[in-house]
Amino acid sequence: MVYPSLFYFIKRVTWSKIIVRTESAMLKVGIIGATGYTGLELIRCLIKHPGVEITSLTSQTYEGMQISRVFPSLTKNIELNCLSLNEKEITRTADFFFVALPHQTAMTVVVQLVEQKKKVVDLSADFRLKDPLIYERWYGKRHSSPQLLQEAIYGIPELNRNNIERATLVANPGCYSTGIILALAPLLKNRLIDVNGIIVDAKSGVSGAGRSLNLTTQFTEINEKACAYKVFEHRHTPEIEQELSVLAQEKIIISFVPHLIPVNRGILSNIYSNLKERLTTEKLLCVYQEFYQKQKFIRICPIDSFPDLSQVRASNFCDIGIKVDPKTNLVVVVSAIDNLVKGASGQAIQNMNIMEDFPEESGIDDVPLSL
Amino acid sequence: MVYPSLFYFIKRVTWSKIIVRTESAMLKVGIIGATGYTGLELIRCLIKHPGVEITSLTSQTYEGMQISRVFPSLTKNIELNCLSLNEKEITRTADFFFVALPHQTAMTVVVQLVEQKKKVVDLSADFRLKDPLIYERWYGKRHSSPQLLQEAIYGIPELNRNNIERATLVANPGCYSTGIILALAPLLKNRLIDVNGIIVDAKSGVSGAGRSLNLTTQFTEINEKACAYKVFEHRHTPEIEQELSVLAQEKIIISFVPHLIPVNRGILSNIYSNLKERLTTEKLLCVYQEFYQKQKFIRICPIDSFPDLSQVRASNFCDIGIKVDPKTNLVVVVSAIDNLVKGASGQAIQNMNIMEDFPEESGIDDVPLSL
Amino acid sequence: MVYPSLFYFIKRVTWSKIIVRTESAMLKVGIIGATGYTGLELIRCLIKHPGVEITSLTSQTYEGMQISRVFPSLTKNIELNCLSLNEKEITRTADFFFVALPHQTAMTVVVQLVEQKKKVVDLSADFRLKDPLIYERWYGKRHSSPQLLQEAIYGIPELNRNNIERATLVANPGCYSTGIILALAPLLKNRLIDVNGIIVDAKSGVSGAGRSLNLTTQFTEINEKACAYKVFEHRHTPEIEQELSVLAQEKIIISFVPHLIPVNRGILSNIYSNLKERLTTEKLLCVYQEFYQKQKFIRICPIDSFPDLSQVRASNFCDIGIKVDPKTNLVVVVSAIDNLVKGASGQAIQNMNIMEDFPEESGIDDVPLSL
Amino acid sequence: MVYPSLFYFIKRVTWSKIIVRTESAMLKVGIIGATGYTGLELIRCLIKHPGVEITSLTSQTYEGMQISRVFPSLTKNIELNCLSLNEKEITRTADFFFVALPHQTAMTVVVQLVEQKKKVVDLSADFRLKDPLIYERWYGKRHSSPQLLQEAIYGIPELNRNNIERATLVANPGCYSTGIILALAPLLKNRLIDVNGIIVDAKSGVSGAGRSLNLTTQFTEINEKACAYKVFEHRHTPEIEQELSVLAQEKIIISFVPHLIPVNRGILSNIYSNLKERLTTEKLLCVYQEFYQKQKFIRICPIDSFPDLSQVRASNFCDIGIKVDPKTNLVVVVSAIDNLVKGASGQAIQNMNIMEDFPEESGIDDVPLSL
Repeated sequence: MVYPSLFYFIKRVTWSKIIVRTESAMLKVGIIGATGYTGLELIRCLIKHPGVEITSLTSQTYEGMQISRVFPSLTKNIELNCLSLNEKEITRTADFFFVALPHQTAMTVVVQLVEQKKKVVDLSADFRLKDPLIYERWYGKRHSSPQLLQEAIYGIPELNRNNIERATLVANPGCYSTGIILALAPLLKNRLIDVNGIIVDAKSGVSGAGRSLNLTTQFTEINEKACAYKVFEHRHTPEIEQELSVLAQEKIIISFVPHLIPVNRGILSNIYSNLKERLTTEKLLCVYQEFYQKQKFIRICPIDSFPDLSQVRASNFCDIGIKVDPKTNLVVVVSAIDNLVKGASGQAIQNMNIMEDFPEESGIDDVPLSL
Repeated sequence: MVYPSLFYFIKRVTWSKIIVRTESAMLKVGIIGATGYTGLELIRCLIKHPGVEITSLTSQTYEGMQISRVFPSLTKNIELNCLSLNEKEITRTADFFFVALPHQTAMTVVVQLVEQKKKVVDLSADFRLKDPLIYERWYGKRHSSPQLLQEAIYGIPELNRNNIERATLVANPGCYSTGIILALAPLLKNRLIDVNGIIVDAKSGVSGAGRSLNLTTQFTEINEKACAYKVFEHRHTPEIEQELSVLAQEKIIISFVPHLIPVNRGILSNIYSNLKERLTTEKLLCVYQEFYQKQKFIRICPIDSFPDLSQVRASNFCDIGIKVDPKTNLVVVVSAIDNLVKGASGQAIQNMNIMEDFPEESGIDDVPLSL
Repeated sequence: MVYPSLFYFIKRVTWSKIIVRTESAMLKVGIIGATGYTGLELIRCLIKHPGVEITSLTSQTYEGMQISRVFPSLTKNIELNCLSLNEKEITRTADFFFVALPHQTAMTVVVQLVEQKKKVVDLSADFRLKDPLIYERWYGKRHSSPQLLQEAIYGIPELNRNNIERATLVANPGCYSTGIILALAPLLKNRLIDVNGIIVDAKSGVSGAGRSLNLTTQFTEINEKACAYKVFEHRHTPEIEQELSVLAQEKIIISFVPHLIPVNRGILSNIYSNLKERLTTEKLLCVYQEFYQKQKFIRICPIDSFPDLSQVRASNFCDIGIKVDPKTNLVVVVSAIDNLVKGASGQAIQNMNIMEDFPEESGIDDVPLSL
Repeated sequence: MVYPSLFYFIKRVTWSKIIVRTESAMLKVGIIGATGYTGLELIRCLIKHPGVEITSLTSQTYEGMQISRVFPSLTKNIELNCLSLNEKEITRTADFFFVALPHQTAMTVVVQLVEQKKKVVDLSADFRLKDPLIYERWYGKRHSSPQLLQEAIYGIPELNRNNIERATLVANPGCYSTGIILALAPLLKNRLIDVNGIIVDAKSGVSGAGRSLNLTTQFTEINEKACAYKVFEHRHTPEIEQELSVLAQEKIIISFVPHLIPVNRGILSNIYSNLKERLTTEKLLCVYQEFYQKQKFIRICPIDSFPDLSQVRASNFCDIGIKVDPKTNLVVVVSAIDNLVKGASGQAIQNMNIMEDFPEESGIDDVPLSL
């Protein structure tokens, strides 16, 4: 007897990736901090994941409340109550944890989970930076577990898949960081650009600011508006520079100007840099296509096309467009991601899929909702 | 050997619905008019459908072009070229057809497909009205196949599933019609309201106007705006009245005022009517819960809650809230749907699933994208 | 010698309204609660007012800060620091006060201002209801100055100009109330409708919720959304019923369903009611045109047109469209206002103009910003 | 006898600017192409202008129709019918003309008006470029009046007021050009930056695309989206380079990447360039404040602040923020304008005011509508 969903499987998954699991062996997953936007997005994707079962959700604000009362969109899709964050007990509920807490708060929880031999993807900033002094400088507090910093793997699968496979703790990258690093990697790895003078002008949707109350993200304060903020001072800068430096094998400094624009989801990042020697747009497109040819979630735009936010919305894709200005030999690379998916929860699940040997696209194989 | 996606299957599908199909037996599906918004939405959902294969797409405007060039969001998800609409040839490409053409144009194509023994879901208005004179009055032209009008089944599965199971031609309801009829059905079936004086005040997102060029749907002409249009004269009125009259078993007339609001997707419909006798909100909620208890895609809101557009976005759900004004014994029923899914392509696929004996939610089991 | 701005004057003002004032005699105006949205809107309009000078602004949150730092849009337009609300001192700074504080807080301040013989327009709900028991029922607290309730004049100039002329304290109507009362007045005054069964379905922009922090008005929580709220329970209901009852000279009860839609400004109100006898749309349009013929800020839409929010944006206009459904003899009246102007600060200035014998449109004669 | 509006005058205008005009001497103004967005914006502002009277409006699409039927927002503000564009007759109707036609069409009309000794501000691109060959390269057609190109004055008053005073024909700058040139002028005039490698990343609201039908500017195609377009190829590039070269007195080349973002109005332009020597942000702010100290419509943001689109909306202001990245000695200058006001119609009126010796802010002294 063969089942209809099997065809789905046949259509979308390579055979080499098949794992035999019985239902009782489904991976039990817990989400710590389930009622923020990244928490909601984790739930939305994991419900569709064929190999996992969500067994616990925590929330300080909504403790005891059914998750479908917090988010009515989840009604008839999941029935779980929000638990308080009692780390001792929570560790019993699942084998794999996503930590979607604010930085500093995340740190303590992650340490305890790791001590209990749980695998963890941490969506906060707490384990992204290798150098505890840089952490302290940008986040204003001492890091309480500097030893774990070395162990944590920075989780961009397209650049770091082998390390993620073996990881127990993955530091999920910042939303800006993902789109910017993926856009620059082929240029730096192939040593095509002058590493000085890299400029990043990025535009983010409002969900990047999270679900906490804030005057600047009230509807009337951002609708029909656009503005630069934290100019040259955004906290994602050090992790971007750290990872770019690894790729380039030399110290990279960027000038980073983020903006807020009135859309719910998405980050459009423009990277400007000077080519070391004359190259055509066509040639660069080939470089990018080759660099990312085996990556399911990277799509290189055809010549003279640039990605818009809508073509990746609600999906785990990162779309990239490239063009050289022949007058000045400047290259602009434009990347588009959904900040909540490839920029946060989708990539977190992609990391889990690699850590747990699931097909990499399980739970995150949605066609983008371009409209 | 058991496959991971099987667990998905186990989690979401009741066993009684299992159908044995081998890959070669997957249903071949064609979409006539694939490059409008309902066409795009059909593609988006059918890509995820475990039992079907999209084998042909037609488009007059984009004939010969790859669909992923028309809609970059589809890149890496489907590779098909748009065909011209040569009915003779097109019928060979598939066994089941969705017709997403403008009314009048749809009519001819549907007739030919039906003659070739193809099963069809027609998303246009051409086969919704039983009376060809009413069709002519509202659409300005004679109906060329009045005999097919009798055969066609009006496709709201929650109210008409038995007939849909046996249908070869399903007339997919208008977007407004779906939300309004589902909201009123329990009241009319249970004879709880005065059938005179039913008022409908509905608010639609802009995608309802389709993808054709129009001054009134230019961004700057609708952003930061809201307006009533076609007051008491919208073309969905006769099909709504027809179906409500069937439910009530008497002639129903409604006063219908549609509005355009600046969102991409969604229809929020408020129905106001007078209760025949005093009933509490609690009592009415029970009536609704009972009426729809076996329907997967209908969700009744808890007392004192009303659905918002975002909680059904990109999903096939129809969410319904109810409240009685004790001062006047007026009841308001508020329903929310995604006009492109439950209001068009999602319901079309739901109809196909029933016609083809697939699990009813195949391809349309997305968790709503509330953000 | 004649001055250029005189031509402006000649073009827009009737001669009978000319008042002789020297600069030193300009009206000194204070705004209590200047850093909310209605405060900002008062400032924006009063800067352009030829007969007044803003002499004091208060703000608890921004005490001591320059107003142009709070609202950068005001830079180079006004230079004043925000004062704390020390009532004793504040009364010395001006002769006329706008109170733009939350209800309950407003009450105390207004009483003190009135005692000091200052003229006041209060934008809060505190002096709108004549019956202190109704106030207590809807606002949850006792009214501390029930005697002032009788003295206060409900400030819709088009319906109540004579009383406003003589008032010291004007209770500025709620934003919903203005659009709804103006839409219904001609029908009730002329006794054309059945006073039972009046239904109001209104859609408001988000600025109506004010500038305070609120999860439901965060950008991501309202963008791409629409929802009904406070169904049959909105606090503007009693003041609307009070004023409609005066107009109709009998007790009026309405069923009122407000909605939030994702625009910054504007309220679109649909009023549904049953005509006592058969009347054509044309006939009703004449009734409205006659009723409002001398009112500068009321515009009746041509037949088969309905106002949209954008055509009144940033202006003091209230635009009204009307249509009869001949099948059911139901009439729908649609009114559009800018909730911050005609629905709040603009009408407050209109009231001041009448109280102070300025031309009624001074400071609020902006052409709408329809785009 | 003194009139109330006189106080307005006293508050806002310096005495040296007073001109004696009697009503009969008001300037008669015609708008050629009155039913596009710049036409509407000209009407909106000129209605409030104390020294002019709009005497004629032309429109091909709406010939014979009342302008308030085309734009209901204008009802009760102006009553004029749209005329056809018969140049012979039109010249009799007014003494001063704004030409708001598409390029190429504008050319012929402007020539005829100039021949009839009318003063003209042309809002098209036809008279901005001095070199007819460059015009031909970017606009695809020969220029029919190359001699007039030399005579026409490029109209940015803050940089070119003396020439504008004496002009009969002013070429009103492109919307992007205004914000970019104003942002760069102080740096280039003071020779503070490396003239190679200037990068401009600009974000425009949708009204910049005009009122003509276009799939890419349909609501559903731009809402919740953002994208780069015409990368390194936008037609405003040559006029920007021309004017910057004049300022710098050497050839300037820029790399210009425009974007579309989902707002109605506004352009936010980021300019990135390398400082020749180390300078602090404070020092640069002083340079800007000094450079623009006499300019009413330029506002320099306080240190660590950047302008957002809303703080200039519906006003003629250009707000500028500046910051140096000390790590790389890169400077970013961010300018914000309303593309329809300072970027088009407002600046056109500012030019007229200078040409006709009106106070420079007449008709365009609105406080920004930040909400």
